[in-house]
Amino acid sequence: MITHALLTDMYQFTMMQGLFAQNKHRTRCVFDRFYRTNPFQGAYTVVAGLEQVIEYVKGLRFSEEDITYLRQTGVFTEEFLEYLTTFRFTGTIYAAPEGSVVFPGEVLLRVETAKDEAILMETALSMFLNHESLIATKARRIRSVIGKDGVAEFGMRRAQGVSAAVQGARAAFIGGFDSTSDVYSAALYGMRPVGTMAHSWVMSFPTEIDAFRAYADQYADNLVFLVDTYNTLHKGVPAAIQVFQEIRERRGGTMPSVYGIRLDSGDLAYLSIEARKMLDEAGFPEALIFATNDLDEYKIADLKQQGAAITAWGVGTKLITADETPALGGVYKLAGQWEGDTFMPAMKFSDNIEKVTNPGKKKVLRFINVRNNKLIGDLICLDYETVDSTQDYVFKNPLHPWKQTVLKANTFRVQELLVPIFVDGELVYDVPTLAQVKAYGEEQIQLLWPEFLRLRRAPEVKVNISEELHQLKSKLLLEKVGDPS
Amino acid sequence: MITHALLTDMYQFTMMQGLFAQNKHRTRCVFDRFYRTNPFQGAYTVVAGLEQVIEYVKGLRFSEEDITYLRQTGVFTEEFLEYLTTFRFTGTIYAAPEGSVVFPGEVLLRVETAKDEAILMETALSMFLNHESLIATKARRIRSVIGKDGVAEFGMRRAQGVSAAVQGARAAFIGGFDSTSDVYSAALYGMRPVGTMAHSWVMSFPTEIDAFRAYADQYADNLVFLVDTYNTLHKGVPAAIQVFQEIRERRGGTMPSVYGIRLDSGDLAYLSIEARKMLDEAGFPEALIFATNDLDEYKIADLKQQGAAITAWGVGTKLITADETPALGGVYKLAGQWEGDTFMPAMKFSDNIEKVTNPGKKKVLRFINVRNNKLIGDLICLDYETVDSTQDYVFKNPLHPWKQTVLKANTFRVQELLVPIFVDGELVYDVPTLAQVKAYGEEQIQLLWPEFLRLRRAPEVKVNISEELHQLKSKLLLEKVGDPS
Repeated sequence: MITHALLTDMYQFTMMQGLFAQNKHRTRCVFDRFYRTNPFQGAYTVVAGLEQVIEYVKGLRFSEEDITYLRQTGVFTEEFLEYLTTFRFTGTIYAAPEGSVVFPGEVLLRVETAKDEAILMETALSMFLNHESLIATKARRIRSVIGKDGVAEFGMRRAQGVSAAVQGARAAFIGGFDSTSDVYSAALYGMRPVGTMAHSWVMSFPTEIDAFRAYADQYADNLVFLVDTYNTLHKGVPAAIQVFQEIRERRGGTMPSVYGIRLDSGDLAYLSIEARKMLDEAGFPEALIFATNDLDEYKIADLKQQGAAITAWGVGTKLITADETPALGGVYKLAGQWEGDTFMPAMKFSDNIEKVTNPGKKKVLRFINVRNNKLIGDLICLDYETVDSTQDYVFKNPLHPWKQTVLKANTFRVQELLVPIFVDGELVYDVPTLAQVKAYGEEQIQLLWPEFLRLRRAPEVKVNISEELHQLKSKLLLEKVGDPS
Repeated sequence: MITHALLTDMYQFTMMQGLFAQNKHRTRCVFDRFYRTNPFQGAYTVVAGLEQVIEYVKGLRFSEEDITYLRQTGVFTEEFLEYLTTFRFTGTIYAAPEGSVVFPGEVLLRVETAKDEAILMETALSMFLNHESLIATKARRIRSVIGKDGVAEFGMRRAQGVSAAVQGARAAFIGGFDSTSDVYSAALYGMRPVGTMAHSWVMSFPTEIDAFRAYADQYADNLVFLVDTYNTLHKGVPAAIQVFQEIRERRGGTMPSVYGIRLDSGDLAYLSIEARKMLDEAGFPEALIFATNDLDEYKIADLKQQGAAITAWGVGTKLITADETPALGGVYKLAGQWEGDTFMPAMKFSDNIEKVTNPGKKKVLRFINVRNNKLIGDLICLDYETVDSTQDYVFKNPLHPWKQTVLKANTFRVQELLVPIFVDGELVYDVPTLAQVKAYGEEQIQLLWPEFLRLRRAPEVKVNISEELHQLKSKLLLEKVGDPS
């Protein structure tokens, strides 16, 4: 069986072998993971994917079949292949927990380990975090316009493969969704699987009302009838009301806890408003109006603004494929390495100024106003730096020193964004349940003032770099780029 | 272990149980899979994903854990759960082979089986085909502008999860790519894994030239040096040339079969032209210039038009996430069912006229000009219809009867698009190797005149429906919609 140890780019293996041949493969180094631009033109990203990173790192071993395959490529020496048979992760990983709300440039995961380990893992861990964070972020945007209505993830049939569907449903849950239609993901992660009925159900009966009655005969609860197969207002809604009346009579005046209609086409604002009137007049004011049909945060915001009487939402394709920004450009860059006992910070230079990286072993400090619990801003700094919140603190960006905020002593608290996940190869993180991650995500989004939840043209959350990090970066830039050779 | 039998939407199970309770679950029916709009504003879609459909259908069994999970939801009866333990696919599937070039509205997969089987499978098979066809199509678009240059898939780190990366690499291969960086996918499917080096490799050495030398010491071939870490034309390319010269001296004037440089930032047209001059002047006219950096078919077309001297391409994010159209809206609709011995065609009505489906058990006939082997057009017709190519044939659309082409006897041949995959539950398809699929894909794209390969505003390939299908559809429309009840 080939394993996920091969889930990487070929060049990682050729570089690993190159280092191995030079006996540099065990050089201890630090790699940072961060991203440069928020997806969907928003102000934030919601972290997800860490659980899968943990599973991947824990299980990282080469099987015999993996080694056999690598041998077949003709590129690797027997010494190197032999070395791989005992390969495992031996280092330390710090990361932002799932559900964290984060911003461009921040270190979100830091790997400190032998260089060959760090290199091998880049591709898979980037993929897990890029993908799942993207979906959690899209979900949070959708949740932010939906308010307290119910919302279910419905995207499996259009997902980019099994993992996109299954991990995507989980990420959507972290981003604020209530449930999923994906039974596999629900079973795997303990979410609630939900659904209504398809057009094919309605079409399997001579008339719509037969289809609704057959469903009501079978199920005592969750009676949500799809009403748009023939004509929503002239046929579907009246048929649903008829069956609701029959149920009410049969049950002596009571109704199921969840019942209602689903609209899946047409003008959802108009149809929902008219259907609401019809349902209310028939004495079914608690009937849900569930809407689906290629929804995303923009359409939902429009429908809300048009007074749509929709009370529950199903979102599929545009969530599960992260429509508009289908990739999060998270990167993973060398921040430094030890030469003997000396740590040498490293940075990537580039003609594109925004592609110059921050050197050194770093962390992120989060400044929170203790009075209102809102985020003041984040600080990217070197790992050994500390901030004493019992003293006044000048929160500033060394690139724009005239822009500064004096934080008065004891009006703010400082939190570390990154927490230890693995230390010296051992998992030290108490992996939270999915319910805990979801609750943490809800707390995290509360850190942001509402203006940062705007769908477009949101202002930037303040992320500064520390004076010490700035000086280190300037020094390295001058050393390398200033050299005219 | 939960299995892929749960890889479906919850409503499929509740509908299955509803049919089971009414003893309608074994009603034989026909479902069609088709899509309505070409992705990426192009003229075609390339089919991929069928191999995964076959694996899924073959393996479709409920494990004890699947049943236990379904029981836990509290929604299902013991009778139904018991029934599921013996559930398997017993029907017939026809499908367009992987690599086929297809068009909106065409039946691409037809399932004829008991209704509960057809329902259960909808979600997973739609997902496999939607996803993989999308990536194969994007790959074909990219290949169509690249011409005969080499092109590798590099997208794993930005893919929407493991399956998106792994099946995506395979789909890209079907769509005309030469290789992938994804070692796992390469191992699984027998593709060639390729790669160069990362910035972190270059940064791991005191200077660029040390990094290149170290690589050349390790590897005898595939020496492609990443030259943009510091300054492409002033540092990177001269360092690469220096090492190429050292190699040439060491090898007595010969060079590796594959060597060159990789450009990953900056103005790729300018840099490649200048680098080409420098390489040529130093006597390395065979040196590859490999370009990467967020490429897609549009950027590549622009670079070609600007005279870029790029000879090999790496495409990642925008291919693997199907940027611009991240979902293919393939659907799966009931086309009819047996009532006793009578087949009753079914169709979905909709206020959106383009959402009205074609009823009946159908197939697709492909008309090809025997002289130039180009596609004349496709005909969606009823399953029993035939066309005799030794007779003149009037190729026309019943909706626009004034637009018609008379095809002279023996100037055209007629091909069935759909081939049998499963018959009565048995796999009858001789599953081709990936190399065969790729070759078939190359043949298929040759069916199209070049105008249909335009990236945008391509004309529509002619897809007609037969007179008989048109009459059936009109009759059903009048019966249902014409009824004012």
